[in-house]
Amino acid sequence: MNTNLKELCDLIEGTITVGELNLPITGFSSIKEAESGEITFLGNARYASSLKKSKASAVIVDEQFTDIPEGIAVIRVNNPTLKFSLIIDKFGPQKQPFIPGIHPTAVMGANTTYNPKKVYIGPCAIIEDGVEIGDGTSINGGVFIGRNAKIGNDCLIHANAVIKDRCVLGNRVIIHSCTVIGSDGFGYEFAVGKHLKIDQVGIVQIDDDVEVGSCTTIDRARFGRTWIGEGTKIDNLVQIAHNVITGKHCILVSQVGISGSTRLGNYVTLAGQTGVAGHLNITDQVTMLGRSGVTKDIDEPGAYMGYPTKPLMEGRRYLAYPSKVPSIIERLKVMEEKVKQLESKLTEI
Amino acid sequence: MNTNLKELCDLIEGTITVGELNLPITGFSSIKEAESGEITFLGNARYASSLKKSKASAVIVDEQFTDIPEGIAVIRVNNPTLKFSLIIDKFGPQKQPFIPGIHPTAVMGANTTYNPKKVYIGPCAIIEDGVEIGDGTSINGGVFIGRNAKIGNDCLIHANAVIKDRCVLGNRVIIHSCTVIGSDGFGYEFAVGKHLKIDQVGIVQIDDDVEVGSCTTIDRARFGRTWIGEGTKIDNLVQIAHNVITGKHCILVSQVGISGSTRLGNYVTLAGQTGVAGHLNITDQVTMLGRSGVTKDIDEPGAYMGYPTKPLMEGRRYLAYPSKVPSIIERLKVMEEKVKQLESKLTEI
Amino acid sequence: MNTNLKELCDLIEGTITVGELNLPITGFSSIKEAESGEITFLGNARYASSLKKSKASAVIVDEQFTDIPEGIAVIRVNNPTLKFSLIIDKFGPQKQPFIPGIHPTAVMGANTTYNPKKVYIGPCAIIEDGVEIGDGTSINGGVFIGRNAKIGNDCLIHANAVIKDRCVLGNRVIIHSCTVIGSDGFGYEFAVGKHLKIDQVGIVQIDDDVEVGSCTTIDRARFGRTWIGEGTKIDNLVQIAHNVITGKHCILVSQVGISGSTRLGNYVTLAGQTGVAGHLNITDQVTMLGRSGVTKDIDEPGAYMGYPTKPLMEGRRYLAYPSKVPSIIERLKVMEEKVKQLESKLTEI
Repeated sequence: MNTNLKELCDLIEGTITVGELNLPITGFSSIKEAESGEITFLGNARYASSLKKSKASAVIVDEQFTDIPEGIAVIRVNNPTLKFSLIIDKFGPQKQPFIPGIHPTAVMGANTTYNPKKVYIGPCAIIEDGVEIGDGTSINGGVFIGRNAKIGNDCLIHANAVIKDRCVLGNRVIIHSCTVIGSDGFGYEFAVGKHLKIDQVGIVQIDDDVEVGSCTTIDRARFGRTWIGEGTKIDNLVQIAHNVITGKHCILVSQVGISGSTRLGNYVTLAGQTGVAGHLNITDQVTMLGRSGVTKDIDEPGAYMGYPTKPLMEGRRYLAYPSKVPSIIERLKVMEEKVKQLESKLTEI
Repeated sequence: MNTNLKELCDLIEGTITVGELNLPITGFSSIKEAESGEITFLGNARYASSLKKSKASAVIVDEQFTDIPEGIAVIRVNNPTLKFSLIIDKFGPQKQPFIPGIHPTAVMGANTTYNPKKVYIGPCAIIEDGVEIGDGTSINGGVFIGRNAKIGNDCLIHANAVIKDRCVLGNRVIIHSCTVIGSDGFGYEFAVGKHLKIDQVGIVQIDDDVEVGSCTTIDRARFGRTWIGEGTKIDNLVQIAHNVITGKHCILVSQVGISGSTRLGNYVTLAGQTGVAGHLNITDQVTMLGRSGVTKDIDEPGAYMGYPTKPLMEGRRYLAYPSKVPSIIERLKVMEEKVKQLESKLTEI
Repeated sequence: MNTNLKELCDLIEGTITVGELNLPITGFSSIKEAESGEITFLGNARYASSLKKSKASAVIVDEQFTDIPEGIAVIRVNNPTLKFSLIIDKFGPQKQPFIPGIHPTAVMGANTTYNPKKVYIGPCAIIEDGVEIGDGTSINGGVFIGRNAKIGNDCLIHANAVIKDRCVLGNRVIIHSCTVIGSDGFGYEFAVGKHLKIDQVGIVQIDDDVEVGSCTTIDRARFGRTWIGEGTKIDNLVQIAHNVITGKHCILVSQVGISGSTRLGNYVTLAGQTGVAGHLNITDQVTMLGRSGVTKDIDEPGAYMGYPTKPLMEGRRYLAYPSKVPSIIERLKVMEEKVKQLESKLTEI
């Protein structure tokens, strides 16, 4: 990367408020990692203190931010995070172009439906009988697609992911490596001292524009479908049990677990390591803080936390209640002593 | 599916108590997902309210249930969940038949023992030297079986699972995709400022009728064996550390973690996201609610919850204790005021 | 294994304090699993009670331990755990020797750099274009290495692991099965009612002597690098988000999750199921007990626990505070009654 402040400012359609137009810029990086000569950006005012320690030569900030350190050039834009992406797109590592083709080591089943000129199927990928694959889709090396699964257009299935039989993916779905879509739901009937397996004959349906991280598991329904709504984004190591339904545009952060048959509304966010019990309904626009444990329906939009879950402000107070116990005991002791004295005085009277 | 109420009733050996014998039934589904024309079932009376909203045309209930909504046909049986399975078996998606054979892309090591007419080994599966595979077993595509591992009869190893060297699986064991059996236990000795790896030379032994979900990890023992007892069922994303021993017929729900050398008795259930510290003994018939943190031995059967773990009823009360703090403080204030008044009155006397 | 007490004592350079020199020893095992004829070791005095119940014929203990049961032969050494490893090395299962070679089913990309006489690449491994692999490294069956990744010397990549494009591994790095290094960080920008994907163009850098367990996910940086410091050991099912930096010689136990851009110092230990929020700094020599939830910077070395996290002793007291609520309420009631009586007595006066 060999450019200058003015060229970058033109690229992101900003305004230089501090710095020479011809200041050389040799790279881009985060506030903490930036070296001298590099440009960075401030995505959120709460990192202002990091900016003071940054070695960056230039920073992209929004139009309101005022706490600019000495000696750093400044470009102002309305959305620094998005505008910084333009710099990454231009100067960052080149994206791998989509080159269609079926690798000779890929194993293609019978009665599969795809246009070999418009899909990429990588080495040692296994496409079982009856699979349908839409145009523009990449199935990377080592991926397994079970029989009669349907993959839409422009999907990206990363290496060693597994999509089991009959599951259905929409368009522009991204599945990361070692993720398993459609393994059996965890269902048993206890009889004669044993757990007898209940067949899981449903599927997983994943709608358009969903992204699923690595080593995540989404189980097939007992019957019917486990259903991930359009635009939902799922992080790594998330568990989604059988018959769960998520709304549209949900965010499920890493290590979240959702038990069977629970339904999330639209725009629900579950932060990391949150667990949700089974057969619950979570309404639209609910946000759970990290490590929450949800055991009841949630009917009102808003932010929640804790176990059992409470609305955010109440949850914060609740977390602090135990800390008041020592002072309560202290006050109790004082009172008990006073009452004792009062009693003895009264006896004297 | 094109049948009627009487035919289904005959199939499940029930009794029609509401509805026409020739009522057409076009499909089966869960209470919430059922459409008009479909049959559903009520597995648990606590979903009675969902039944009221269901669009199903017929429902299978047990002999005690009374809260039947208007306009829905009713078949009574003694176990609706199990009987519904008969309908799924007959009218649901056909199971993939077991067709033995070794796929030409499978990589078979030296000195392996199996009957090629009685096992299935899928594409790109890797069977290392000295592996034994029993009759009726399916090793699906992309699976890796390390040298000298032993797989029993009628096992089902799903795509991209990994079973490391020398591990031993009994009969009818199911291992789901991207699960790793027998990777190294997490053991180090701290010396000269570094963590030095301690060799993990033991194995994992999995007994008959065990099922292990997707992306689950069961580590090999430091020496001896990590041992999963007969009939135990393990969900997705579960961690079982080296030298853990589980009893028979345990249930380990998703995202449970069990630390090294802990022993579970028979019929132990650990609900989702529960963590168990190392070197503990959990007796038979213990059930842990979700998100429990177990730090001590548990010697009495029963249900437990929380962190640190307490018997169920005590744990529930414990969870509620902090909520009493505000009223305690209120009562303290009132008392302090009263005592103050008493003191001043007494001084006046 | 067919040896005797003296031979083993010579091997580990210890001193026999109880037992016949020619006592036959037929195997080695842990205290709990040992059978008659076998030798075991006591790694930690807190397992002394298990030693009393052990069937072992001989035990290796340190020089201080005094609580020796009757009838067991004793070898004393200064570090029983390390010395026991010498017995395992000699009498345990033979390690698989490193045999270099490229399996004919491995898929080698263009412009890869490696010495085919000095690396092992297993069946169905996929090495994309531009990958560099150092001498002495084993890439096992089913592994995927993305384009332009660099793997150092003497690394061991277990079956079905995935290392994505441009990631960099040092020397003697071990990556276990189904682990994913370098999948996309979980980053979106919310606009027009949707979560728009933010390109993750950075890499993962893993320094020398790091070991990463099975089914663990380490995401690539948004830009720059996610960086695992030298000698750090990571267990199974751990999540490390984009731009996290760990110091040297950290220990991250199973099911830990670390959110984006957090930095750990050197010698940090996070016990199982701990979660750390994003953009935090944890200083050197910090130990988190299991299931901790870290929401703030930690500036002082030491042990911590709980959610929110507190120093160990304070955290233990904090956990116990709710249990004091019932007795507080009891004392309050007594006091309220006494004050009432005092008030009525005073009125009488």
